[in-house]
Amino acid sequence: MAKLKVGIVGGTGYTGVELLRLLAVHPAVELAAITSRSEAGLPVADMFPSLRNHVSLAFTDPAKADLGSCDVVFFATPNGIAMQQVQDLLDQGVRVIDLAADFRIRDIPTWEKWYGMSHACPEVVATAAYGLPELNREKIRSAQLVANPGCYPTAVQLGFLPLLEAGAVDESNLIADAKSGVSGAGRKAETHTLFAEAGDNFKAYGVPGHRHLPEISQGLTEMAAGRKVGLTFVPHLVPMIRGIHATMYAKLTKQLDLQRLFEERYANEPFVDVLPQGSHPETRSVRGSNYCRIAVHQPQNGDTVIVLSVIDNLVKGAAGQAVQNMNIMFGLAETAGLGVLPLLP
Amino acid sequence: MAKLKVGIVGGTGYTGVELLRLLAVHPAVELAAITSRSEAGLPVADMFPSLRNHVSLAFTDPAKADLGSCDVVFFATPNGIAMQQVQDLLDQGVRVIDLAADFRIRDIPTWEKWYGMSHACPEVVATAAYGLPELNREKIRSAQLVANPGCYPTAVQLGFLPLLEAGAVDESNLIADAKSGVSGAGRKAETHTLFAEAGDNFKAYGVPGHRHLPEISQGLTEMAAGRKVGLTFVPHLVPMIRGIHATMYAKLTKQLDLQRLFEERYANEPFVDVLPQGSHPETRSVRGSNYCRIAVHQPQNGDTVIVLSVIDNLVKGAAGQAVQNMNIMFGLAETAGLGVLPLLP
Amino acid sequence: MAKLKVGIVGGTGYTGVELLRLLAVHPAVELAAITSRSEAGLPVADMFPSLRNHVSLAFTDPAKADLGSCDVVFFATPNGIAMQQVQDLLDQGVRVIDLAADFRIRDIPTWEKWYGMSHACPEVVATAAYGLPELNREKIRSAQLVANPGCYPTAVQLGFLPLLEAGAVDESNLIADAKSGVSGAGRKAETHTLFAEAGDNFKAYGVPGHRHLPEISQGLTEMAAGRKVGLTFVPHLVPMIRGIHATMYAKLTKQLDLQRLFEERYANEPFVDVLPQGSHPETRSVRGSNYCRIAVHQPQNGDTVIVLSVIDNLVKGAAGQAVQNMNIMFGLAETAGLGVLPLLP
Amino acid sequence: MAKLKVGIVGGTGYTGVELLRLLAVHPAVELAAITSRSEAGLPVADMFPSLRNHVSLAFTDPAKADLGSCDVVFFATPNGIAMQQVQDLLDQGVRVIDLAADFRIRDIPTWEKWYGMSHACPEVVATAAYGLPELNREKIRSAQLVANPGCYPTAVQLGFLPLLEAGAVDESNLIADAKSGVSGAGRKAETHTLFAEAGDNFKAYGVPGHRHLPEISQGLTEMAAGRKVGLTFVPHLVPMIRGIHATMYAKLTKQLDLQRLFEERYANEPFVDVLPQGSHPETRSVRGSNYCRIAVHQPQNGDTVIVLSVIDNLVKGAAGQAVQNMNIMFGLAETAGLGVLPLLP
Repeated sequence: MAKLKVGIVGGTGYTGVELLRLLAVHPAVELAAITSRSEAGLPVADMFPSLRNHVSLAFTDPAKADLGSCDVVFFATPNGIAMQQVQDLLDQGVRVIDLAADFRIRDIPTWEKWYGMSHACPEVVATAAYGLPELNREKIRSAQLVANPGCYPTAVQLGFLPLLEAGAVDESNLIADAKSGVSGAGRKAETHTLFAEAGDNFKAYGVPGHRHLPEISQGLTEMAAGRKVGLTFVPHLVPMIRGIHATMYAKLTKQLDLQRLFEERYANEPFVDVLPQGSHPETRSVRGSNYCRIAVHQPQNGDTVIVLSVIDNLVKGAAGQAVQNMNIMFGLAETAGLGVLPLLP
Repeated sequence: MAKLKVGIVGGTGYTGVELLRLLAVHPAVELAAITSRSEAGLPVADMFPSLRNHVSLAFTDPAKADLGSCDVVFFATPNGIAMQQVQDLLDQGVRVIDLAADFRIRDIPTWEKWYGMSHACPEVVATAAYGLPELNREKIRSAQLVANPGCYPTAVQLGFLPLLEAGAVDESNLIADAKSGVSGAGRKAETHTLFAEAGDNFKAYGVPGHRHLPEISQGLTEMAAGRKVGLTFVPHLVPMIRGIHATMYAKLTKQLDLQRLFEERYANEPFVDVLPQGSHPETRSVRGSNYCRIAVHQPQNGDTVIVLSVIDNLVKGAAGQAVQNMNIMFGLAETAGLGVLPLLP
Repeated sequence: MAKLKVGIVGGTGYTGVELLRLLAVHPAVELAAITSRSEAGLPVADMFPSLRNHVSLAFTDPAKADLGSCDVVFFATPNGIAMQQVQDLLDQGVRVIDLAADFRIRDIPTWEKWYGMSHACPEVVATAAYGLPELNREKIRSAQLVANPGCYPTAVQLGFLPLLEAGAVDESNLIADAKSGVSGAGRKAETHTLFAEAGDNFKAYGVPGHRHLPEISQGLTEMAAGRKVGLTFVPHLVPMIRGIHATMYAKLTKQLDLQRLFEERYANEPFVDVLPQGSHPETRSVRGSNYCRIAVHQPQNGDTVIVLSVIDNLVKGAAGQAVQNMNIMFGLAETAGLGVLPLLP
Repeated sequence: MAKLKVGIVGGTGYTGVELLRLLAVHPAVELAAITSRSEAGLPVADMFPSLRNHVSLAFTDPAKADLGSCDVVFFATPNGIAMQQVQDLLDQGVRVIDLAADFRIRDIPTWEKWYGMSHACPEVVATAAYGLPELNREKIRSAQLVANPGCYPTAVQLGFLPLLEAGAVDESNLIADAKSGVSGAGRKAETHTLFAEAGDNFKAYGVPGHRHLPEISQGLTEMAAGRKVGLTFVPHLVPMIRGIHATMYAKLTKQLDLQRLFEERYANEPFVDVLPQGSHPETRSVRGSNYCRIAVHQPQNGDTVIVLSVIDNLVKGAAGQAVQNMNIMFGLAETAGLGVLPLLP
């Protein structure tokens, strides 16, 4: 089989370099182009020495890149960029995976409120598949445009999914206390993510409201068969590079074997690993890999269920899930190119 | 005024060295003895070079230390040690502050269940004052024995205190998602707190049950005027050295000005700092100091109140609060010796 | 005695906030003004919550600050600012301590080459005292303008000082392999000092040439009684917030008791602590304090001497040494306001 | 071709789990057994959740493991274990790679002095090949026993190799200032490698003498064609998990194109990457991979050459190099199973 021709728009951030790390060793992929306006002409490996000997491409000016000849194009751009460029690619028959937020939220006013801009192509949003394979595999398979989920939304939705589908908890009172490594804030220079600011420190942020709240709520509502979901979501910044840990709380409305519920729901999922009863997943146990590891607890047999869910925010929370979606879209083995083991310690 | 003669039992752990850091510059204190069975004879500053030129004492064998001549003795020992030794000191008129858990829980069977041992002096427990000054200042003032609170319990109780006293929340459904730096695990050599294990990593632990749960529940019940409290408590390990961040969730049962409630409750507290509305306290903003900084949020004006509370686990969560208690017990200025500013960055 | 009126120009960086931490509790100081063009009007404690309750000043527009009425003004500004403003203050009789590099190097062409700009007041440079008290205390005492040393230069010069003064090593072949925490790069937003870039990582930088090389060489030449010094200086970036560790190598040209040499040279220095033979100083043993701790080794009794020197780059390497210089200039106890103990762990 | 049957003795440390990470995805390897006396019966993935779904083996009691039927056995044991067990395996025709130090030093008295024990099989030492492929590939190919180099020795020898072979430097005056992440100290519980001790801290250690000194000296002497080498070696502990950075200093004795010298020497080496002139390699650029990246500098065109060399201490400094040696010994592609890209950020 001919290799897929792959293009990447915006390759200088962390999701961009992570896509390159994964795609450079993907057996069915040929990297065709990676664009960056500011770095056009610079060999990618000069910016990211970790890619030396593995990625020989240079960054291309977006205006000169022949993305229309690609089979699939990934957007690893800031929010608001993909929505201006995808229509042209879609018209040329290119399939697109957007790692930003432009196509994640179906309700346009909600999107515009939280992202603070007008949507450039609201009519395209409805055609996009939300790229959480464990929830949406069939739609992804045939989609021309996939909206790759956010990092927090991936960890939180996978944690609540079995409970909501089973109608086992009070969906009006869900809490997700989530913690992210600093790479989640991206590679742009900002004071609050400096080593001397974020190191040896811990804080919450965005408590009054975070953009991932409506994205998560949309997904949870779907899992709850449309019943109205009440979610409190508090993100925190952890002095580590990669990793998300979501601690989720809900009230049980029926008695059932929680361990079995989770194990059965994810039995056939290649990248969701339900840990044995009593476990506490660590973020490092998924570092660099596409796994989500989950544990479910019911302390003192009370009516509170606690779910612990960990992912690598740059892999299952971004680039890895994007590759998983590409594999599904093109009928490849879903695990192709994603076989790298977590780096521990 | 003559200086207080101070003894420390068990000075080789983190609470011990932290007591020394604070007491060495306390204007009203004379360090009389610091004991350690394993390190007897070793100058303290040889083990902790940070104390060179400031602490000239050597560790003394406990059997040879004349603790009975001290005005006050701090126990910075593992759980289960102080309860075997305090009676003798109390009989000699010495006042005692125990930084371990031996006298924190008034219900003996509860203590014995969670700590896995028989209590050596159950009759003394009832005489101890629980050393949270913001809740218990008057009892501390006259107490001969003070049970210094745990680190998590300090951060969590100070966060819930105004809400429970005001009867503003449903006390049957409280959640405390707490995060601690690794020094909270102490200085003993263990695999899971090695740098290469705890670094660049995040995890929950003790979800089925943690010893601080009954201690916190006891305090919250008192604040709630004896109404039964339902608390879910999940601790996490953060790759930082010092600091605790507690994120607390409760359901409001009445409308009130939360910011004002907190500011008024703590208006006269020298070590509790209520941040302006909309703030997110950082652990580093209290690093090395005795402050607890608190922010209160009500996202989207819903019925969920979120309290963020940070302390330095070794200061307000241990040695600093112990010194604060000593100051109260001996009629000193409550802030004496505790004026050091947080170290930021 | 009336308190010193102190002004700070440029208080939003790490040396600025560190000056505030130290001066806020200095018994002989009254903080009169702190300027910042970009943050004028903002209460200082809103930017640095660690200073809440201790610093009530707001940032002042430099144009409106009455610095001329101060006894002493600290410049905590980027290189090239102080040289444009000090003349005016000196004319008003104000004494000035510059924490930047503008007055550190006496040879103007050398300064202009390494700092890439023309010097605005070359004639003032000769009047400045180089503020390394251990080398230059008498000149500092009477100086109106003090050039506070760089962080690397402080650690390296204090390490080589006894050897060069004693003529004990080949001064033509000195090596200083130095390592700094990330706060040394300042608080400005830059990609390479982000947590996700500098964390869990180690690298050298500036190997072809670093601005501290001529400053160190100037000092070492003076110690060597004017003999030409050959220095190789390689700085490295360490994933920690504070601290400098310099590892220095030289060839012995005579046999002498190295331990005694160092101990005697620094016997009366309040902030230089020579560790016992065989020691390895840790950066954390000086964290937050004004100490320089030093150990000297002669492995296998060979002809190579190794000196290990640690400081906190923001204290003895910047703000603390500036306060020490102020104390000397105004006849205060040299340790006034600098009694805080290192924070360990 | 049938897969190689591979055994691992001592799999509970960091080199053990790293071998498993690499071998689990090696296309030519079948994991046959992994032994641990203390953990016999425990599934490996229960101890290291990162290996779930990839390693199904349980630890085996050494007494019951059929290592004699393996093609190759790795010893990932503490020093002094392999020397007691290899003879038996060698007699059965098994090839052995020892990741500890038992066979690295050919001079037995030197080994016994530095390792503080009598050698159990001195006659076997001479038969072992020192497993640095860049120096010794042909001997490794045919060896039955390979002594895998230490982590520091790998980084330092690869840095000095081109200079010494070319006779370009004064070999009597070499300095290697080396820095290691904390995983280099292993997974055993010790106080000084706790997160709260090693974090936010930097120190030298072993300055009077470190066991890697004689190993490095032996290798450098061979490169220098037997001329006596004078090496000063100072290791330091960096608050990061993985990575070694060696900064090396030597005096040039002839003028030559250093960049070209290094590039030509390593032109055919699959795992040594000479960076472009003026570069500063970062440890994270090799994190998780088998690369050694090197830069060579000659500041201000003086007579001092500086070499910067980085490796991942657990990969090229241990398990990765061991796999590389296995590949050479069995005629596999030298890069087989070692294609994983560095994890950055």
